[in-house]
Parts: sequence; structure tokens; C-alpha cells
Amino acid sequence: MTLFKHWQTLYINVNLATMTDGSESYGEITQAALAISKGKIAWLGKESDLPEHFSVKDDDVEVIDGKGQWITPGLIDCHTHLVYGGNRANEFEMRLQGKSYQEIANAGGGIVSTVTATRKASEQELLASALPRLTALHQQGVTTVEIKSGYGLDTLNEIKMLKVAGLLADELPVTIKRTFLGAHALPIEYKDNAEGYLDVVCEEMLPQVVSENLADAVDVFCEGIGFSLEQTKRVFDAAQSYNLPIKVHAEQLSNLGASELAANYNALSSDHIEFLDETGIKAMKKSGMTAVLLPGAFYFLRETQLPPIELLRKHQVPMAVATDANPGTSPIHNIHLMLNMACTLFRLTPSEALAGITCYGAKALGLSESKGQLAVGYDADIALWNINQPAELCYQFGVNPLSRLMQNGQQVLMNESA
Amino acid sequence: MTLFKHWQTLYINVNLATMTDGSESYGEITQAALAISKGKIAWLGKESDLPEHFSVKDDDVEVIDGKGQWITPGLIDCHTHLVYGGNRANEFEMRLQGKSYQEIANAGGGIVSTVTATRKASEQELLASALPRLTALHQQGVTTVEIKSGYGLDTLNEIKMLKVAGLLADELPVTIKRTFLGAHALPIEYKDNAEGYLDVVCEEMLPQVVSENLADAVDVFCEGIGFSLEQTKRVFDAAQSYNLPIKVHAEQLSNLGASELAANYNALSSDHIEFLDETGIKAMKKSGMTAVLLPGAFYFLRETQLPPIELLRKHQVPMAVATDANPGTSPIHNIHLMLNMACTLFRLTPSEALAGITCYGAKALGLSESKGQLAVGYDADIALWNINQPAELCYQFGVNPLSRLMQNGQQVLMNESA
Ligand SMILES: [Zn+2]
Ligand SMILES: [Zn+2]
Repeated sequence: MTLFKHWQTLYINVNLATMTDGSESYGEITQAALAISKGKIAWLGKESDLPEHFSVKDDDVEVIDGKGQWITPGLIDCHTHLVYGGNRANEFEMRLQGKSYQEIANAGGGIVSTVTATRKASEQELLASALPRLTALHQQGVTTVEIKSGYGLDTLNEIKMLKVAGLLADELPVTIKRTFLGAHALPIEYKDNAEGYLDVVCEEMLPQVVSENLADAVDVFCEGIGFSLEQTKRVFDAAQSYNLPIKVHAEQLSNLGASELAANYNALSSDHIEFLDETGIKAMKKSGMTAVLLPGAFYFLRETQLPPIELLRKHQVPMAVATDANPGTSPIHNIHLMLNMACTLFRLTPSEALAGITCYGAKALGLSESKGQLAVGYDADIALWNINQPAELCYQFGVNPLSRLMQNGQQVLMNESA
Repeated sequence: MTLFKHWQTLYINVNLATMTDGSESYGEITQAALAISKGKIAWLGKESDLPEHFSVKDDDVEVIDGKGQWITPGLIDCHTHLVYGGNRANEFEMRLQGKSYQEIANAGGGIVSTVTATRKASEQELLASALPRLTALHQQGVTTVEIKSGYGLDTLNEIKMLKVAGLLADELPVTIKRTFLGAHALPIEYKDNAEGYLDVVCEEMLPQVVSENLADAVDVFCEGIGFSLEQTKRVFDAAQSYNLPIKVHAEQLSNLGASELAANYNALSSDHIEFLDETGIKAMKKSGMTAVLLPGAFYFLRETQLPPIELLRKHQVPMAVATDANPGTSPIHNIHLMLNMACTLFRLTPSEALAGITCYGAKALGLSESKGQLAVGYDADIALWNINQPAELCYQFGVNPLSRLMQNGQQVLMNESA
């Protein structure tokens, strides 16, 4: 076997947090090496186990001395809404000034203001405003991001949002997965007529999304202030008829049973889940779903109900972690902060938190077979960190220790000062 | 008056958050201009009020078109411990893994581990580890930072820490104010002999700190787990005998009355103050002290006792906000996150939060007359932000909107992409 003849890049003198699915302690391999060929991971293991015939001098492989730094998979933010118009700084300020709900509503606050601004914005304007947000995540080591629609709430603007999300992949070396979230909220045109709006979602928007191949999944906000369980089921049925995977915003403010419903549709994930109960957890486990934890929204909304972490552990439901980046409830574009908050607020271990933005982030997007782990055959999305142990990524915040980032085996970022 | 003949730099087409002491709504001036001469702010006001004889063409002043962006004073982080050896990621991880207090102590956790690592580190090593932390703050728009000693806990190493803090000013364009915090904790050598340690603090360390001019203030950690009120008084007396201003870590975990004691010494600030009562607040008001709020430690320690914000407002005690950057209770090197946490967790208004890291941050350091405000004669420490309104600095987190930074009238940072 002389596979190494085809190696393009070889990291030596590194430590690996392989984040292999289900492994504990980061699936760590110390004093390791990792080789890349044709954009995939071709070999990894103890440096002393490198193929014996291999000689750095004999081959034209690019050898990178990692100087004892750590490699993790490229980070994955599996739940964002980072394409939107305007912002809600005004509403944020009014609330802190003690203005009443009515005053804020009169000043155009709430999701309505984001929908209005998103509808008004051109594709170019939406792209320009989303780009710094995605750039921030990219500079933190993120190589894969999910982006949802849901602020257009009409066919034209939901399609526009998904197109912009797709265009972002031309601007930055980040893999974008798009989720159609037409059933995010009821637009004012359909006040008191949810069924009428869902007609549009299921019979107009979704067919167009599918025919233009604009989404990788379908999502619904199932909640008292969103859509009912019965309405959610209607969207799931439509998604299923197009063979689109399902995700759900569920049990954030109450337990409606949306996670269990989603499990019946073999959904990819149920997200938020502060109020999820054991019945729902068992259903999720049975259908192989991932629980997506969103500590940024928990923090920003000053929630007190913690997600059922112990029960998720007990039933071995994989836990992903994401930013939920959005203008209303989590205007936070930093995945490192989510690591710290997942540990500090939700009491995840650092290994669990890191799994949440690598292997289980991938799983929540249906990418378990290609991303989120350091394993042979997986995409060479690789982040090199100037740290002494992986827990530092969760413990400290503010200094970005990312020293090098690769996407599909191509170097996309280098930070000499890290 | 042709003062403008001496202008070096003139910002036009900007909005100013002057943060003038006590002003509301950021002391904002829209459609403004600001001129700099000899490192100081020479003029500011409505652009339409620029001196009538002034003509951009006639003078060799550098004119910067701010394109409608906002200028704030350079940011001030008035409470940090950012010089230290090692880190506490291991302890953080063990705690989240459910390890017992004893297991963590056996593994060398707690402040003892930081003291050991700090003592072991050379000046160069301490400088190298502090530099990325200060660089992060600098890149966020910080132009003045306070740094405390307190991990040496013997004369040699307390002096070493203060020297390193001073050396940082040669590495980065940031004004450093140093605080001697020998009375941070009891070193193990003086277990059960606090008085013996305070002999060293007051009679050996402090005289040397003074003779080498290594500190701008003296601080004490007054708490059940720190030093008693009587012991704190002893250090205050020593500081006063050298005419050094006083600061205090007070009422974080209980109300010992240290703020009131500090007020008797005309201290600059009382910091943390979650358990401060109205008596203490009145005393602080009377002596002109600043209350320093540290939301990062509150967050990281998952505290539930909020500082008495309403009472501080009622008695008009100025509120500063800072990172408390330190390895044990706030390993967070981001002042923008403190803005968000001051609003989200402590319910400060964005204007109050921004005042906390500008004018009142300056006040907590005794710099009210030269820094933290946009006012004629003040140091030209100036941050230009690509935002539509100041509240955005508090509301969103993760995208750094700093587009330009000046310290003493010199441009020290430029970010084209912001
Ligand atoms: Zn969401
Ligand atoms: Zn402190």
C-alpha cells in the first residue's frame, strides 16, 4: 500500500480531537499525524505509526509542522437565521428603557419589523448584511453553516432569502445548508388565517423551493406563538411528499409534543427543547434524531427552564449546539461563545460541547457520513488551534486561538499571531 | 480665533456619542464633525457649525469622511487581571465532569494553581501570554486598560506582574493603568497567618511598588474568602500613607461593608458589589466613588444576586462596566460581550452600558479629566464604528463593527471590512 504517494498535505506533530461519533474525551489522539488527499482525510493516527515507507523528503507532499497544536474538525453551526434585513437594536433599547409592549409594537418592534426590512431589502443588500455575520463565523473556524429562511413569509421573499443563503457560498469558503422555514410565523396579511397561509407554504412556496432546489430541509416553529401541532403536521406531510428532511423548532416555551411528532417523520433534529419530556426524548432516540441546544437564545431571553440534559444523556440522544443567530432572540454570531455557554449555562462537559459543534452538528444536518469528524474518507475540513488542551476552546473566551483553517483540503485561513 | 490652523485631523460626516459625564442618550450629536490637534480633541460639534473661516482645501489638515458612522471615545476596561501564568481549563473541565472539590484541589485547582504558574513564569513568558489577551481588547476598540497584580503573592512576583503590565504598553498602543493587589488572597506560605502576610504586603511590597512607581492604585479583595474588613483597613491605611488611590473588590458574595469603608478613604471605586446595600451606596455617593459592575464574573459563576442597579440609579452613583478578565472567575477577554451582558443580565440601558466602558470606566481609574469622553481638551482616543445607532454596540454580538481606532490622535487600527 503506497497510498501516501497521493498525499497532498501532511500534518505532523499535532494532537487530534477526532470527535468520532460517540467517542468520549474528544476521541483524542496525541502526538499524531493527519494526511489529506483529494480534499479528503486520507490517513490519521499516531505519528509513530506513519507508513514505514513514507519519507517526507521523497515525496512532494506539503508537510506542515503543527508544533504540538490541536486539530479539530472544521466547526459546524447547524442552526442559524443569519440572512435578514435590518436589526432590532431599537426594540432592544426600548425594552431596557422600560417602554411598554404596546409602545414597542407601535414603534414597529417584533418579528414584523424584521419581515418588513427583509422584504424591502434587495438580494444584494441581504447578501451584504449577511456577509459580515458569516465572515465572523468563518474566522472562528466554522466550515459548515445552516441558514434558514423565515423572514420573507411570502413566496417571493422566502425564495429570495434562500437564494441569498446560497450566494453566500460563492463569497466565502463555507459549506451552506439551507432550510426552508416558511412556517416561522404568521405574516400580518394572514392574521387569524393560519390555514390560508399554510396553503401558500405547502402548495406554492414548497413546490417552488423544490423545483429550484433551494433547500436541504424543511423546518416549522411549533409553539403557542407559532404553529400548532396539527398545522405543523401539515407542513411535515408536504415536506415528506417531496422527500425533504424535517427539522423543528420545538418545546422552547412549552411542551406541545412536536419532537415526538417529528420523530414519526424521521426528522433530523428537534431544536431548542427546553420543555422536552422523557416521552419525546425516547421517541427522538428511537428515530435517530439529534437534539439541537441553543444556549444563545436561552441567555438572551433570560430563560430559566434548562433543557433536559440528564435525560438526553440517559437515553443517549446526540446533542448538537448552535448559535441560532437571529435578530430577535439571539443576535449573536459567535460559535466559541456557544461552547462557553453550553458548558456554563447548560453544564455540558467541554467534550460534549465540542461534539455539539462538530460530529453532532453534522448529524443534525444529515452530514454524519462526510463532515464533523476526523476520519479517513471524511471531508478535509480542518481547524488547527493554538491550545494545550481541547477544553481551552470552551473555557476561555475572547482570544481566538484558530491558527489555520482548511475546507475540503484547501487552506482558507491562516492566522500567524494565534 | 483660528485654532483650526493647528488641526491635524478632522472627521466630517460622523455622529458622535460624546458620553459626556452624566449626559443621557449617549450625549449624542448627529451630523457632526470632530477635530484633533496635538493628540487632543480640539473641536467638536455640528458639522454645520464648523468655524466659518475653515476650509478643507486651505489647510493641510487630514480630513476623514466618516460616511455617517459613529464615533465613541476609545473604550476603557477598568478592571482586569490579564497578566497571569497558566490557565484553569483543566479545573473548568473537571468541575463539569462532576469531579469533587477535593479531586479538583488534589489536581492543583483553584487560585493556588494560577499563583504557582505565575511565579514559575518568566517576565517574557508572562508578557507573551498576556499579549494576545490585550490584543483582543485592543482590536475591540479598547484604548485604556487597568491591570491588577495579585497572583504573585510574594514581593518578587507581585513586582514582576506589575512590571509585565507596564511592558505591555510598549507592545500595543493601549494606555495601561496598574493596580497593586497584593491583598488578593492568602498565599499557602501564610496559611492561618493573614497578619503576617499583610506585614509583607504593607511593609515590604507596597514600599517597593511605590519606590519603583509601579502602581497607580491599591486594591484589596475584602470577602469571607479574602480579607476581613479590619485587614482591609490596614492595607487602605498603608496605601493612604503613600497617597495612592484605593479600589476594592467588595460585596461580591456577602455584604461586609467594604464599600462604605472604602468611601471613608475617598476610594476610586468599589467593584462587583452584588450584595451592596443602600447604606453603602449612600456612602459611595457622598465620597464620589464609582461602582464597577462585572457581568462576566456574574455569568461565569452563575450568580443569582443582581447588583443593586435601581438603588445605584436612585442615588446617582456612576456605574462602570469591565471584563474582570481573570483565569478563575471570568476568563473572558471581550468588552463587547460585557456591553451585551450588562444589558441582558443586569438590565442596564445601552446608554448606561456604554457609559460604563467610557466616561465611568475613566472615572473608576481617576481619569475623568482626560479620557472616556469626547470633549475639547480630552485625549483623542477615538473609535469609529460602522453602525446606525449606538445601541447596536450592545445589542448584537460577534460581528466587530470597529472601523478605525485612534489613541492620542494617532491612528492605531484600521479595519476596511467593518
Ligand atoms: Zn431558530
Ligand atoms: Zn477582579
